[in-house]
Amino acid sequence: MTTTRALLPDDRDAWQTLWRGYLEFYETELPAAQDDLTWNRLLDPQFPIHGAVAVDDDGHAVGIVHWLTHAATWAAEPYCYLEDLFVDPAVRGGGTGRALIAHVAGWAREHGSPKVYWLTQQHNATARTLYDKVATDTGYVHYQIGLGA
Amino acid sequence: MTTTRALLPDDRDAWQTLWRGYLEFYETELPAAQDDLTWNRLLDPQFPIHGAVAVDDDGHAVGIVHWLTHAATWAAEPYCYLEDLFVDPAVRGGGTGRALIAHVAGWAREHGSPKVYWLTQQHNATARTLYDKVATDTGYVHYQIGLGA
Amino acid sequence: MTTTRALLPDDRDAWQTLWRGYLEFYETELPAAQDDLTWNRLLDPQFPIHGAVAVDDDGHAVGIVHWLTHAATWAAEPYCYLEDLFVDPAVRGGGTGRALIAHVAGWAREHGSPKVYWLTQQHNATARTLYDKVATDTGYVHYQIGLGA
Amino acid sequence: MTTTRALLPDDRDAWQTLWRGYLEFYETELPAAQDDLTWNRLLDPQFPIHGAVAVDDDGHAVGIVHWLTHAATWAAEPYCYLEDLFVDPAVRGGGTGRALIAHVAGWAREHGSPKVYWLTQQHNATARTLYDKVATDTGYVHYQIGLGA
Repeated sequence: MTTTRALLPDDRDAWQTLWRGYLEFYETELPAAQDDLTWNRLLDPQFPIHGAVAVDDDGHAVGIVHWLTHAATWAAEPYCYLEDLFVDPAVRGGGTGRALIAHVAGWAREHGSPKVYWLTQQHNATARTLYDKVATDTGYVHYQIGLGA
Repeated sequence: MTTTRALLPDDRDAWQTLWRGYLEFYETELPAAQDDLTWNRLLDPQFPIHGAVAVDDDGHAVGIVHWLTHAATWAAEPYCYLEDLFVDPAVRGGGTGRALIAHVAGWAREHGSPKVYWLTQQHNATARTLYDKVATDTGYVHYQIGLGA
Repeated sequence: MTTTRALLPDDRDAWQTLWRGYLEFYETELPAAQDDLTWNRLLDPQFPIHGAVAVDDDGHAVGIVHWLTHAATWAAEPYCYLEDLFVDPAVRGGGTGRALIAHVAGWAREHGSPKVYWLTQQHNATARTLYDKVATDTGYVHYQIGLGA
Repeated sequence: MTTTRALLPDDRDAWQTLWRGYLEFYETELPAAQDDLTWNRLLDPQFPIHGAVAVDDDGHAVGIVHWLTHAATWAAEPYCYLEDLFVDPAVRGGGTGRALIAHVAGWAREHGSPKVYWLTQQHNATARTLYDKVATDTGYVHYQIGLGA
């Protein structure tokens, strides 16, 4: 059975593997310095980016989730943005993704956040099958302006 | 011609009217205390929510935009989330929305943010005609879990 | 008996009177806009400035305390800086100051902060009699460069 | 001549030596994990702790300074707290401390902060000789409650 818990310093290697797998899925490469920066932020108790890992019965990390909080104009309390979710392809379909989303929702509820949200590719049917079960497709789409900074 | 500038304390009444118009468009009602809280955050130089107003030749406010910054796992510098945009229906189609988006992009560029993004309703063809000109439709869709907090 | 509790929106008038009394003690005048800004920050659940009020048996506010958290280089968790403390002169010596400091220390402990600290005038013998009972005089003194900003 | 600049990733080893010298001066030991955490915060562009290094003509690091910003109840803009300052004993008296303080004051001015402040041991006559030249001894003393967290 998969359980979830907050990331710990000793998870670095396992996290790195899953994070790289996630970025490959999005055909993205980030500089190694970004890995260090993101990892350090995930572990810093004062930085508003948080992470959890899913581990199997043998204690192997099989999935990760990252989320952050940000202020919003419609609410007194911050929203919770689930930015990254990745499950080892070898264990997909076994409830790991659902458990990681539930972990974030539980954290958000404990911290008084009124909303957890995320974005996903319109054509990612596999992911959306799960998301349609646990969340609401709001009918909103996403635009961006890249600033090359 | 429409110009844009940061919100000032004296804009409160004009802002209130536009903000209420915006919320009506989304068929949303917020408690009056939220108006005060959001306004105070917009004006506080240390709070990460910012706002600008578009004014016409006579100095009348004809549009508002709110944005916020938040940390992200893919970048050293914060992303810029354009959360609210509203233009007085009487002046639509005259470049006010475009000017307000450009205001945010200019602010983001000055502050080193790599990205400005926003969400819009899939079926909002009028808005998307503009957005398709000034930004990229990323093909992402939006899910949320409301926590009733 | 004096009890302490978090500030509430309805405390504005009573807070204003005590805050002005406090500033007069320090022979300081601040613009009215600063009162509004500080009050709004005290009430905003997401702003890192917090406040509590002491009330007597009749529910009258007889003292206030403001504190803030900030990151530090010596600790993982934030320090808690008790910035302002004021007790109505009519009730001094009755335990109100001590109760307000205890309120802050309790909040800090709940929030995982390793330290509460404050500054006081070297010659303020009355206040220091209390402080010497509830805290440690570290032997540090305070320097500042005013930047006229 | 000594020059000052922001810390860079390659300064880690030199910083570590100076930081340890500084902690020894205060007869303090921190866990190694705190060094990593503080270093990562110093280098993170989004964390409100900042650092600079003084380098001599040969490019050797001979001093460090750390500062942080925090909101305050008396001002719209944040205060700047100079938390740590250390100069290699071999070069003391040559203007390095003064240059590092000036670096912080310059940064604070650029960022709109109305005040830079710090604490020092009452009996540290050497340091205070410098501080009395560049800053104001406010006559405030420092109390703290350690919470053992």
